Amino acid sequence: MRFVDIIKKKRDGLSLTASEIDAVVRATLSDDVPDYQITAFLMAAFLKGMSPDERGWLTHAMTHSGDVLDFSHIDGKKVDKHSTGGVGDKVSLCLAPAVAACGVIVPMVSGRGLGHTGGTLDKLESIPGLQTRLSTERFKEVVQSCGMALAGQSADIAPADKRLYALRDVTGTVESLPLITASIMSKKLAEGLDGLVLDVKAGSGAFMKTRNDARSLAKALVDTGKRCGVATTAFITDMGQPLGKAVGHANEMAEAIAVLQGGGPADLVEITEILGGEMCVLGGVATSLADGRAQMRAVLDDGSALEKLKEVVAAQDGDPSVCDNPALLAQPNVSVPVKAQRSGYVCDFNTAAMGMAVIGMGGGRNTTADIIDPSVGLLVEVNRGDSVEAGQVLCWVQAPNQTQGDHASMLVGNAIRIDDNAPTHVPLVMEEIR
Amino acid sequence: MRFVDIIKKKRDGLSLTASEIDAVVRATLSDDVPDYQITAFLMAAFLKGMSPDERGWLTHAMTHSGDVLDFSHIDGKKVDKHSTGGVGDKVSLCLAPAVAACGVIVPMVSGRGLGHTGGTLDKLESIPGLQTRLSTERFKEVVQSCGMALAGQSADIAPADKRLYALRDVTGTVESLPLITASIMSKKLAEGLDGLVLDVKAGSGAFMKTRNDARSLAKALVDTGKRCGVATTAFITDMGQPLGKAVGHANEMAEAIAVLQGGGPADLVEITEILGGEMCVLGGVATSLADGRAQMRAVLDDGSALEKLKEVVAAQDGDPSVCDNPALLAQPNVSVPVKAQRSGYVCDFNTAAMGMAVIGMGGGRNTTADIIDPSVGLLVEVNRGDSVEAGQVLCWVQAPNQTQGDHASMLVGNAIRIDDNAPTHVPLVMEEIR
Repeated sequence: MRFVDIIKKKRDGLSLTASEIDAVVRATLSDDVPDYQITAFLMAAFLKGMSPDERGWLTHAMTHSGDVLDFSHIDGKKVDKHSTGGVGDKVSLCLAPAVAACGVIVPMVSGRGLGHTGGTLDKLESIPGLQTRLSTERFKEVVQSCGMALAGQSADIAPADKRLYALRDVTGTVESLPLITASIMSKKLAEGLDGLVLDVKAGSGAFMKTRNDARSLAKALVDTGKRCGVATTAFITDMGQPLGKAVGHANEMAEAIAVLQGGGPADLVEITEILGGEMCVLGGVATSLADGRAQMRAVLDDGSALEKLKEVVAAQDGDPSVCDNPALLAQPNVSVPVKAQRSGYVCDFNTAAMGMAVIGMGGGRNTTADIIDPSVGLLVEVNRGDSVEAGQVLCWVQAPNQTQGDHASMLVGNAIRIDDNAPTHVPLVMEEIR
Repeated sequence: MRFVDIIKKKRDGLSLTASEIDAVVRATLSDDVPDYQITAFLMAAFLKGMSPDERGWLTHAMTHSGDVLDFSHIDGKKVDKHSTGGVGDKVSLCLAPAVAACGVIVPMVSGRGLGHTGGTLDKLESIPGLQTRLSTERFKEVVQSCGMALAGQSADIAPADKRLYALRDVTGTVESLPLITASIMSKKLAEGLDGLVLDVKAGSGAFMKTRNDARSLAKALVDTGKRCGVATTAFITDMGQPLGKAVGHANEMAEAIAVLQGGGPADLVEITEILGGEMCVLGGVATSLADGRAQMRAVLDDGSALEKLKEVVAAQDGDPSVCDNPALLAQPNVSVPVKAQRSGYVCDFNTAAMGMAVIGMGGGRNTTADIIDPSVGLLVEVNRGDSVEAGQVLCWVQAPNQTQGDHASMLVGNAIRIDDNAPTHVPLVMEEIR
């Protein structure tokens, strides 16, 4: 079959067969099919959609377009978590060591930040010496010895996604449910997982702005995971305000350590317990979500989750002493307050704008070549619904200097809306999709 | 504006502005915008459509993407004809000299055959010596001296269309009404015309298989021509059977000469008179279509149309003696009959299959590099609705040898359907769109 015939079939809204979907994925791995045919296909798929079957086949083929990790020699179920990304989302940093401490194998492959959300790898690298670029062999060794590892995606994982994503990014074909689903799931499924927990964010700082859109994505992800033979659960969680207090890199790492020390902000702790509890269920060490949450609480309280982080940091050449003394992490040069302009209730956070304010200070990337300053960020002092007085500090801007701090303070001030009436309560975890 | 934003706007079904459409056309003229973005745009335009405004702006911008001929130094209105292409369609060969003989300037730019329909240039080149690759200067000189010229498109005419068409061809985005319209009209309008008559074919051998599709295209073409300031009329004509008797190259040239000699098949004569009559109206030399038809009939009868052909053939380095003695054109090696398998009425011609049978004998191109054998073709002896007896000759296959002739005869036999009942009458000229 000629590639143009596959394009035409999708253009006409017909469902492709598994072998046609395979041909699309094979096309991304060779130079036989030019980019201009692939992008025409992508636009047709964007506008005409894909059936659950097609989406599953696409995910399967993309998963197998490169290496699929094999941890079958390690006893125990392998479970990972994926978040669609939010501002202040350092859940992975708390979650992975805690779940591993509960006895589930966590071969976690994470990403870097681009745009207004930070990346787990970048936050991790605020720990002096820590390496996240692990070879597949080294990754497996760390998983074997620690029961977990935290690393970046190797070049050999889902190479089809790399070419497709690069083309989608420049052709207006990113925001397609089946294409997003296949992109997310192929990378995760290539980790050789038994189970996967998904944190689908909804709100101003999330990829999916509305709960309905988040639900559609969550359902597609769960359906696709199951079709590919992996037990999958999704939670829709609120990204209408930053998660925890810290937004940045070193400060988020410090906040994650606080959770592993048994403390930390309530919202971050709650989401860590819930997602971790479900990972324990899918990992076969808990009988119910409640049981899993209890186990999570126990390893956070008894220090074993923190010990697990120290163990994995050391295995990945980092300095484990930061886990006991987070002050060893990079500290900001200046802290500038963001003060309430008026009294009232905190109604709304423009979390995307807050993330961009951090990037503006060097705490993120505009291009993949940018170097991140781990010391800059925000410490948000209020939650949605809080009653505040004019002049009260809403947030601290952690800045490289006063000028940048003042500018970011103004931006963050504009991003926090205070009104006369208290906002409707939005639950942190809105829905669970199984 | 970034090109990806234009893609997204069209993807979302919004109408582009004139300057956005200009940006699309400019993109095709430089390497700043890669093919893979252009094809994503094309697929979005294919699936979301374009408004009459957008279609008009696209046509205008494509027209001006290269040279626009200027015949303002030559008195009289410049009028051309364009056909969407059919099997046995040699109308241009009869029409152009006759209309020029009526006093209208006809700067005719024609195409070559690819696929099952032949090209006017290829048919013309069956005249020994005749050159159709004229420089712009030479083309203008011939138009000045003869009142007409018959040439191929120069590289400098509508270069945007060349890149767009090449990309559409391999990405399933050919069959888009606005893109087809802009492609056809930009090339024609670059001839610097005052008027344009369109022959939109409908039927088995046409690009538009149904009368409804042909009507949609005709309306889009006429609307776009008018928006671009050119008086435009379209006729929807039947392509449910070959036009005239001859299908091929030398034989079609000979048939066109027969019309110019005052004879020729009735259907070919009728369509020549009607299209030519309208060209005379648009060219300001006739007061009505009936008047134009009468003038056409006069120049065909009095030999002045044939004289005009001789004049232009000589001006383009061809041998004008073929106009008096068509036997000088290439003659087939063998003629093989196609006989009726049964008695009944001729109901249906698969004209595309008949065109392909001619290509199979070397009388057409599968790739642009193929050399055409002008001597091969078909002479169709029956019309739709004719009553025939079993064994009667339906068609003569003009072949390079007996083996190829026998094979083509079989194919053509299968392409002519004979049934017990006479088919419904289909008028040759179905509709006129002004």
